[in-house]
Amino acid sequence: MTDAERASEQIRATSALYVDAEGAVSERQEAVAVEEPFAIQLGGETLAVTMRTPGHDAELSAGFLLAEGHDPRGRAAVPVVRRGNLSSAACGVCGRDTIEDLLARLRPVEAATRFEWSVLAQAMQRLPEHQPTFARTGGLHAAALITSAGQYSIVREDVGRHNAVDKVLGRAALDGLLPLSDCFLAVSGRTSFEIVQKAIAAGVPAVVAISAPSSLAIELAERLRVLLIGFARGGAFTVYAGRFRLMANVAGSRGSPGP
Amino acid sequence: MTDAERASEQIRATSALYVDAEGAVSERQEAVAVEEPFAIQLGGETLAVTMRTPGHDAELSAGFLLAEGHDPRGRAAVPVVRRGNLSSAACGVCGRDTIEDLLARLRPVEAATRFEWSVLAQAMQRLPEHQPTFARTGGLHAAALITSAGQYSIVREDVGRHNAVDKVLGRAALDGLLPLSDCFLAVSGRTSFEIVQKAIAAGVPAVVAISAPSSLAIELAERLRVLLIGFARGGAFTVYAGRFRLMANVAGSRGSPGP
Repeated sequence: MTDAERASEQIRATSALYVDAEGAVSERQEAVAVEEPFAIQLGGETLAVTMRTPGHDAELSAGFLLAEGHDPRGRAAVPVVRRGNLSSAACGVCGRDTIEDLLARLRPVEAATRFEWSVLAQAMQRLPEHQPTFARTGGLHAAALITSAGQYSIVREDVGRHNAVDKVLGRAALDGLLPLSDCFLAVSGRTSFEIVQKAIAAGVPAVVAISAPSSLAIELAERLRVLLIGFARGGAFTVYAGRFRLMANVAGSRGSPGP
Repeated sequence: MTDAERASEQIRATSALYVDAEGAVSERQEAVAVEEPFAIQLGGETLAVTMRTPGHDAELSAGFLLAEGHDPRGRAAVPVVRRGNLSSAACGVCGRDTIEDLLARLRPVEAATRFEWSVLAQAMQRLPEHQPTFARTGGLHAAALITSAGQYSIVREDVGRHNAVDKVLGRAALDGLLPLSDCFLAVSGRTSFEIVQKAIAAGVPAVVAISAPSSLAIELAERLRVLLIGFARGGAFTVYAGRFRLMANVAGSRGSPGP
């Protein structure tokens, strides 16, 4: 699929009425992000229906399965687990009601990887360059896998921020790249419990976000040794958990930053 | 519960490391939005587990049930339906897989209500005044029910934007105020299919958002006679669906705006 074909699948033109601050009206063609339902299946069973932006659907499935504790490349039907993130219908076969249940199958990120503050800061400032569909629609979240050297490896955009993360980590899983010990996960919005959970399932030692983390995202990151950064804007950022993963040049004030 | 008590439930202090754009480091106390799991129950059965900001939980349940087609004030167990919004585990008793299934139980908003552009624009500019917890944490979405005269009626903040909407519409449902024919729903972020769906379930004829709508939000709004506005910023906005609900003074260019 070419980039142009993908764009046509992810963006829809719609005629809209623009009303300016003085009430003057004009007709406009606007580009909007496509949202469509997609069923995630395993062994012929539908595990979940998600509202997503079309494209990279195999990655979305793989990433979702990974975070739910399945082998994303396997095909065997395994017990269905329930997502704790957003509301989902409950029933007899769907276990895992509590955060403790979810935590029980997550292990701390083992990699000893540490990150250079300047690499993180500079990489995050380049994120908008990797959001072409957001630039046209204003309606998408982005997630990116970036190496500890600051190189963008995989970037995906989606109307759902969890979907964007699933697509990125799903791609890496399909390529056999897990655990992602030498990377950090960049997200264009806020960080919830579930975003950190997905990173941990893929062995990613750091999550860096443009906006705020939730209380539970911080707790989970601290507990499972993930560097969690928020408000990465204009070259600055705030570290909420896992600060031992920052290199020493950030420990002191006005240290000499690396390249 | 006092405002101070509520704030202590919704905001948690955490110690964080601030790294400025030159690598200088300082220790800070940061306020973060609380995220915690909550089980939505009906007749003793858990229908859903959602990650939400504590507070107004009865409203959250009521709003969720309303959008799922239940009587939010009733107590009888009714067939479980599955949410189409975000991923949820599937099973035998959870029906409704498709958008058409969801649409089948939604009826067009019947109210003939029309809105004045200047009222919408001015009301949206006041939204930040009603987001005290966002102002402190940067980590919450807001939803508000605003009358066609521009008066703020109910405002709620939550880490989940769907939860904020559920809490607002749930409050109105618990107060016996449905259908909400003379109001519009304001949201601080983007508009998805599900946000519009919730508004329709409560009989709200207009949804006005700070950010972009998705393609499916537009389709649903157009089909069920909902005024859908996006990018309401700085007194301007863009109308994506249901433009017949805007008063005539917006129909012409440079018309004489109302008060």
